[in-house]
Amino acid sequence: MTAQPFRFPVAARYAGMESSPLKDIFSLAARENVVSFAGGIPDPQLFDLAPIKGAYDWVLTHQGTRALQYGVSEGEKELREQAARRLSRTVPTDASQIRVTSGSQEGLFVIAQAMLEPGDVVLVESPTYLAAVQAFAVHGAHMIGVETDEHGVVPDALEHAIRTHHPRLVYLIPTFQNPTGRTMPVERRQAVAEVLLRTDTPLAEDDPYGELTFTGATWAPIASLPGMSERTLLLNSMSKLMAPGVRIGWMRAEGPILDTLAVAKAAISMQSSVVDQLTVARYLDTADLDAHVKQVSAVHRERRDAMAAALTPLLPADARITHPDGGMFLWAALGEGYDAQDMLAEAVDAGVAYLPGWSFFASDPDRSTMRLSFVTHSPEVIGDAIQRLGEVIAGRSAHL
Amino acid sequence: MTAQPFRFPVAARYAGMESSPLKDIFSLAARENVVSFAGGIPDPQLFDLAPIKGAYDWVLTHQGTRALQYGVSEGEKELREQAARRLSRTVPTDASQIRVTSGSQEGLFVIAQAMLEPGDVVLVESPTYLAAVQAFAVHGAHMIGVETDEHGVVPDALEHAIRTHHPRLVYLIPTFQNPTGRTMPVERRQAVAEVLLRTDTPLAEDDPYGELTFTGATWAPIASLPGMSERTLLLNSMSKLMAPGVRIGWMRAEGPILDTLAVAKAAISMQSSVVDQLTVARYLDTADLDAHVKQVSAVHRERRDAMAAALTPLLPADARITHPDGGMFLWAALGEGYDAQDMLAEAVDAGVAYLPGWSFFASDPDRSTMRLSFVTHSPEVIGDAIQRLGEVIAGRSAHL
Repeated sequence: MTAQPFRFPVAARYAGMESSPLKDIFSLAARENVVSFAGGIPDPQLFDLAPIKGAYDWVLTHQGTRALQYGVSEGEKELREQAARRLSRTVPTDASQIRVTSGSQEGLFVIAQAMLEPGDVVLVESPTYLAAVQAFAVHGAHMIGVETDEHGVVPDALEHAIRTHHPRLVYLIPTFQNPTGRTMPVERRQAVAEVLLRTDTPLAEDDPYGELTFTGATWAPIASLPGMSERTLLLNSMSKLMAPGVRIGWMRAEGPILDTLAVAKAAISMQSSVVDQLTVARYLDTADLDAHVKQVSAVHRERRDAMAAALTPLLPADARITHPDGGMFLWAALGEGYDAQDMLAEAVDAGVAYLPGWSFFASDPDRSTMRLSFVTHSPEVIGDAIQRLGEVIAGRSAHL
Repeated sequence: MTAQPFRFPVAARYAGMESSPLKDIFSLAARENVVSFAGGIPDPQLFDLAPIKGAYDWVLTHQGTRALQYGVSEGEKELREQAARRLSRTVPTDASQIRVTSGSQEGLFVIAQAMLEPGDVVLVESPTYLAAVQAFAVHGAHMIGVETDEHGVVPDALEHAIRTHHPRLVYLIPTFQNPTGRTMPVERRQAVAEVLLRTDTPLAEDDPYGELTFTGATWAPIASLPGMSERTLLLNSMSKLMAPGVRIGWMRAEGPILDTLAVAKAAISMQSSVVDQLTVARYLDTADLDAHVKQVSAVHRERRDAMAAALTPLLPADARITHPDGGMFLWAALGEGYDAQDMLAEAVDAGVAYLPGWSFFASDPDRSTMRLSFVTHSPEVIGDAIQRLGEVIAGRSAHL
């Protein structure tokens, strides 16, 4: 008789999640000699390394013992002040309304912890950011996707879904959305705000990409519209603007929920790295982040152009791609008969990877879709890899 | 008619937790001119600042773009290797068995996420670390305290509680326990391991203080005993050894739960700060942490002595205090008729603060108890403040 190896009990929320199709996709995409457009990975050559290093050095020289000591769950004062200053460009914000998190992912998780009961409905754009879906789903929330068009979530569909499903929360990414790259125009934001006000519904507004504009145009968050700031949890991240490895983000809120968010954050991780928080504050105080973001966005725009130019002539007749005015992602729907998941292994064999779009849908996935990040590689690399992707698509077309 | 201000719905797990007695206690303790023994706050003068600053500098110079980029949920390879190397002194450990977390608090939360269903029972020492209780409790777990004596949890009581309550998990802090400072001797560890093996029960073994020894003696974790490594999640933290502000810890596990822990970590916060992870790895690789910990522990020992020497003659006749051989905390039970919570305001007025012990009990609190951290202040400051505390206790004695 052999003793059975011990197995830890696993909570139902993670049952069967030891492996996942997405993990397999990212493993595939990480294969050698594969140009991957799968992850939203910044080009490390574009990091503002010297000023960031300078900020760490300054903090450890001038605030060393404080940086190494325990902080508070709300976040370090200097960082909350910098965050409030940036947010106040569009939404008047006091430092006391900021809660620091270890990236936006933790912010989404904190919101879920603070607000969601098993069985609650969360309405999301269809398609939407999959890691947000996961943070909500492991709290037992039921995710329902709401119809979108080229201007984002459709207000009538949103209102109908709210009245039908009584969601605990609506989650939107209004600017340079992940995965589609689409942006809600001002009129659409107003229409959505009216729906949320009329139905007395809270909003989690995720804005990690809003400053990464290619045209110079920026959009004030829905939180800035009349009546909306008190019912919106507005999330920002330094991951896309400064560096993802630093894991610093924050959210803006008003009223008693601020205390609940701090208690939830304390239960999850006490506080975010004080060294990193003070360093980000110092960086925001002394570096010219706006100028840096402008430079990076100019490079990203060239890469978007390279990707769109290469991809467009290779697409099937009834395919559609988005033309994002900022952010990191381009979204392609190949159309009837194509299955981007099914095609991926062949693409990887041809040396190119993308993220199949089905994973971004809470329900009724369009399996012909794919998300392509254009920020990681140079225009030349993008052009070559997209050519190879085009050949794979053409091979499929021949069999339709 | 005035419009009602909007209120976000709050999950039941945080209902009524916007404020807490503990928060009020820490606010009291933070008052000016109060010597606080309430928090487990390291003395910042003892931080190994120059080598830590050197490690940040090296990482940003030699691994800069990698440090600023996304990492993996499991944790950076170098840090997992360093963790495995240290753990292997007592439990043979491969880097693949390490999961990095943002401090032990996140480690406890990850375990709760991965394992606990609402209504599950978690058995804990009575008293035990209150923030662990919170991480479990917000997952709907029912915490049950098990009888302890001067050698830690009582094996017969543990077995009885396991057979009665069928816990999902047992949580123990065997070395220099928080809040009591007590340590389980080897024979007690063996007896506890036998109970856990006989009842097929998993263990979360929290070991943040084990290296902070005053006598040179150290204790191998329960995870190192025969049959135990596969059923134990063993948590380490760099907060007490290196610096809490860096927020880096890790846990050791075996088998399929490692995948679940990584998925849960990803849902919570994607990954811990890559900058901080690589810096801790560099620090562990190049600095002499053991020598540093030895120096710090020698200072802590003097402070424990100062506190015990000052406190002992001032205590009521039937009071008891612990004599920890390491760690950060001394535990005092004033005995029949005393209420440490009730006495706190008076103590703070006299310029000294402690943590009332009731908060460390899952049930049946001994309200005469208090936890005193001896690591933050110099022996002189400790001596003066304890004198003032003695006068407050004496004032209470007069009324008994």
